[in-house]
Amino acid sequence: MQSFSWCSSHGHHAAGIRDEAFCVENPCPDVIVWAFIEDLREVLPPNRKEDKMGKADIGLIGLAVMGENLVLNMANKGFHVAVYNRTTEKVDAFVEGRGAGKSITGCHSIEEFVDTLASPRKIMMMVKAGPAVDSLIEQLVPHLDKGDIIIDGGNAHFPDSNRRAESLDKQGLRFVGAGVSGGEEGALNGPSIMPGGNDDAWEFVKPIFQKIAAKVEDGAPCCDWVGQAGSGHYVKMVHNGIEYGDMQLICEGYHLMKDVLGLSNPELHEVFTEWNKGELDSFLIEITAEIFAKKDEDGDGYVVDKVLDAAGQKGTGKWTATNALDLGMPVTLIGEAVFARCLSALKSERAEASKILRGPQPSFEGDKKQFIQDIHDALYCAKLVSYAQGFTLMAAMAEESNWKLNYGGIALMWRGGCIIRSAFLGKIKEAFDKNPELANLLLDPFFSEVMNTKQAGWRRVVATAAQNGIPLPAITTALSYFDGYRLERLPANLLQAQRDFFGAHTYERVDKPRGEFFHTNWTGRGGSTSSSTYSV
Amino acid sequence: MQSFSWCSSHGHHAAGIRDEAFCVENPCPDVIVWAFIEDLREVLPPNRKEDKMGKADIGLIGLAVMGENLVLNMANKGFHVAVYNRTTEKVDAFVEGRGAGKSITGCHSIEEFVDTLASPRKIMMMVKAGPAVDSLIEQLVPHLDKGDIIIDGGNAHFPDSNRRAESLDKQGLRFVGAGVSGGEEGALNGPSIMPGGNDDAWEFVKPIFQKIAAKVEDGAPCCDWVGQAGSGHYVKMVHNGIEYGDMQLICEGYHLMKDVLGLSNPELHEVFTEWNKGELDSFLIEITAEIFAKKDEDGDGYVVDKVLDAAGQKGTGKWTATNALDLGMPVTLIGEAVFARCLSALKSERAEASKILRGPQPSFEGDKKQFIQDIHDALYCAKLVSYAQGFTLMAAMAEESNWKLNYGGIALMWRGGCIIRSAFLGKIKEAFDKNPELANLLLDPFFSEVMNTKQAGWRRVVATAAQNGIPLPAITTALSYFDGYRLERLPANLLQAQRDFFGAHTYERVDKPRGEFFHTNWTGRGGSTSSSTYSV
Repeated sequence: MQSFSWCSSHGHHAAGIRDEAFCVENPCPDVIVWAFIEDLREVLPPNRKEDKMGKADIGLIGLAVMGENLVLNMANKGFHVAVYNRTTEKVDAFVEGRGAGKSITGCHSIEEFVDTLASPRKIMMMVKAGPAVDSLIEQLVPHLDKGDIIIDGGNAHFPDSNRRAESLDKQGLRFVGAGVSGGEEGALNGPSIMPGGNDDAWEFVKPIFQKIAAKVEDGAPCCDWVGQAGSGHYVKMVHNGIEYGDMQLICEGYHLMKDVLGLSNPELHEVFTEWNKGELDSFLIEITAEIFAKKDEDGDGYVVDKVLDAAGQKGTGKWTATNALDLGMPVTLIGEAVFARCLSALKSERAEASKILRGPQPSFEGDKKQFIQDIHDALYCAKLVSYAQGFTLMAAMAEESNWKLNYGGIALMWRGGCIIRSAFLGKIKEAFDKNPELANLLLDPFFSEVMNTKQAGWRRVVATAAQNGIPLPAITTALSYFDGYRLERLPANLLQAQRDFFGAHTYERVDKPRGEFFHTNWTGRGGSTSSSTYSV
Repeated sequence: MQSFSWCSSHGHHAAGIRDEAFCVENPCPDVIVWAFIEDLREVLPPNRKEDKMGKADIGLIGLAVMGENLVLNMANKGFHVAVYNRTTEKVDAFVEGRGAGKSITGCHSIEEFVDTLASPRKIMMMVKAGPAVDSLIEQLVPHLDKGDIIIDGGNAHFPDSNRRAESLDKQGLRFVGAGVSGGEEGALNGPSIMPGGNDDAWEFVKPIFQKIAAKVEDGAPCCDWVGQAGSGHYVKMVHNGIEYGDMQLICEGYHLMKDVLGLSNPELHEVFTEWNKGELDSFLIEITAEIFAKKDEDGDGYVVDKVLDAAGQKGTGKWTATNALDLGMPVTLIGEAVFARCLSALKSERAEASKILRGPQPSFEGDKKQFIQDIHDALYCAKLVSYAQGFTLMAAMAEESNWKLNYGGIALMWRGGCIIRSAFLGKIKEAFDKNPELANLLLDPFFSEVMNTKQAGWRRVVATAAQNGIPLPAITTALSYFDGYRLERLPANLLQAQRDFFGAHTYERVDKPRGEFFHTNWTGRGGSTSSSTYSV
């Protein structure tokens, strides 16, 4: 239930909520009435006029491109936004520039900014993750009242958000860690927002976030409450990890089509354009198609061929892989995607190595069209494995942290607005709607059918790449995972035997109940003690 | 230069060193002479008689199997060892049992233990890594004198050893973090020891450690000073990570030979016995051969078939993979080996999945003998990749931590005594002896020749496994790394283009110097700002 206020004389929606409400027809002294309704979206006017006298609905600190675009998005949706930036020249430049004529109030100090906000204050920070966030919180807290809400919309690492949520809660303040995805465009026109933290904060943040978030076909917003503490940033982190995987998969498909099939950029543009109409329909496939069409500014060829093949990264993929290792969950595809970026970054070393290490000359004599379809199927199957791994990771983390995560809701949040948005996520939502306790997406009937019918092409792709010297770390690790996951018997019995042999680690037996441990004196020498300090 | 003491009357080596020295022929009041010599190994008598009156050369706390065996090893090499254990019954049981008749003094309190040790005291802890180590250090410190040496021989995580080294240094004490590998057998008969920490401690610890360590053919001990702070435990951690990789590789070879070629345990025993005579000659291959010969006690088949295929782990492999992610080094094989253990551990879930997810029925129609050779070559090439990755990781860490690591020395320490000991490590030592600045082992002439000539079988193995539904996460990721490393041009240009498209992350160009960054307005829409808060 949301608070909603309107003017008793003019009859339309008023600014502010509850006791802070006032009519936007200035000066109108009439009594303001407020009430609860289910959803504000239907009643908020699309372009409420700015009212310099009124308190702002929300404040945003940090006017880099993401912050600016979120402010413009909020203002365009009828919210009155106060903005502040440490370098105050940015405030003026923005309010007089891109923000001119909109319901945006520029502030030149923390005090002014805080005074401009309606109660409970909703303050969204869009600053660099890390110490800057703590420093800003420290500056804000003395000026805030009990119940005010601090929202971190940056890419915080979830343990930091856990810590901040706890610390602010003790001070009577409310913390929301909100993952925001969609890049510049998304921030402006509808991002995916993944908020988590203090449950009580949600009712105040919801009307704004769900209004500015991307919408899927049926109008549902790509924003819902994720869960407690740092869970919002956690889910955003996994999203980013999956994004690393998706991007790496596309690069591998590109590598094969370029170097084994010899496709030109216009041909690649066509293939990706075609793929974007089917099962792989997604933002990343769409922009990939566009990239292959982009000519260099000087007219000499395509931009993509001029881009250096040394990938950068900013850590969120690494966090996901580390978290997977910590939780003991085999999230191999994201791990390989992170490492692939690391390897690409060793550009000059690779150049040296290319003079010393040899490999096969790529060649292809089969049916090109069929092989392009094989690559398509490999991407689709591997992508499904990656999402399956990501969702098992979130489930492990939820169990570890006592969070209740709504997996269908997460799929819906990612369905639109964010970098990994795709038609495919609708299928994932359906799978979790059908079975909220699904242990692994691969076991859902729709997806298991995909895997069972499309794997032949995937296997041909892996085999062909190995023979042609094309590295496919993500596509192949996905196949290894799939084959490992679907086999009841793996060769880890030998591994356990080895560990018992050299370290007396003991083992369980197939013919005895789980939890009973056995040791074999493999050599006939040595004592009968079990290992306790030697660990591997 | 080492301190060495002898009795002026009896002429033979005395207990203790420098001013603490005394003759072991009790009661002999003669003046003891001490001097420096290069190496104590030649002069220490192999089985010095126990002298209850004398101070002990070294003390050891923690009488689990590894601790016990190290004590026996030291006593067998002529050292007088004091032992202590929190549960003091263990002390008596050990001194009267396995330690009976040896130069071992059992102590029932920390005070008694400390009083028994010659100065500077050398105290080796073999207790469970973690808080127990800190707690023990806390108990010891009040009883110690400046210059005394605390040695942690457990599996500490290197950041803990960094912290302890710093803290003890401030208190005027010396810390050594010593990685010890070799399991029960190694501890007793000659482990690989990787000590690092306070440089001044090495002269006192060296005679004992090099005496009890494993020796390679030419008599060189598998123990040398690794470097500063936690570097000893760090190198041991990487050793363990590589061990995870070696074990996983062997399991994958086993899986192929068992499920694709249908080899029986006796046939597998023969293959591994044969392999142990050639390039793969190593402890792990040797024990694998033995494992396939071990019948179950009740006479019904082989033990290996009774062992449950759910691998355990104790964290050191995970630490290595996490460190690789932190340093941005593509150590993919260890990563996959850790994840493979995680996947195997999902035993009941895999059993469920095996009913739902299908794959090809393994079959093989080619030349079995050739394919076994292919598997051999795949293991050899993949193993080389794994070591190459491990050494690049250590180099990155050394740079990060300002450690000077001697890579040839590390190869020698691993050459014998430890779990990953192998003939192969001699080749690695040679490579670093030839070129201490070698950026990557794959670039060494000997190893590049191996890779350039043996990769065909490796590629056939990967292709065959993919078509037969056998998961080879380690063997395949090694091939992906090799092909990625040897290619001057990778498809990361597309990835950088994508990042610039959706996040304005900018990119470098192949036709411009490194360090110059460019942004393309890919869509013709949007602003010209670069991203600063949206990160992926």
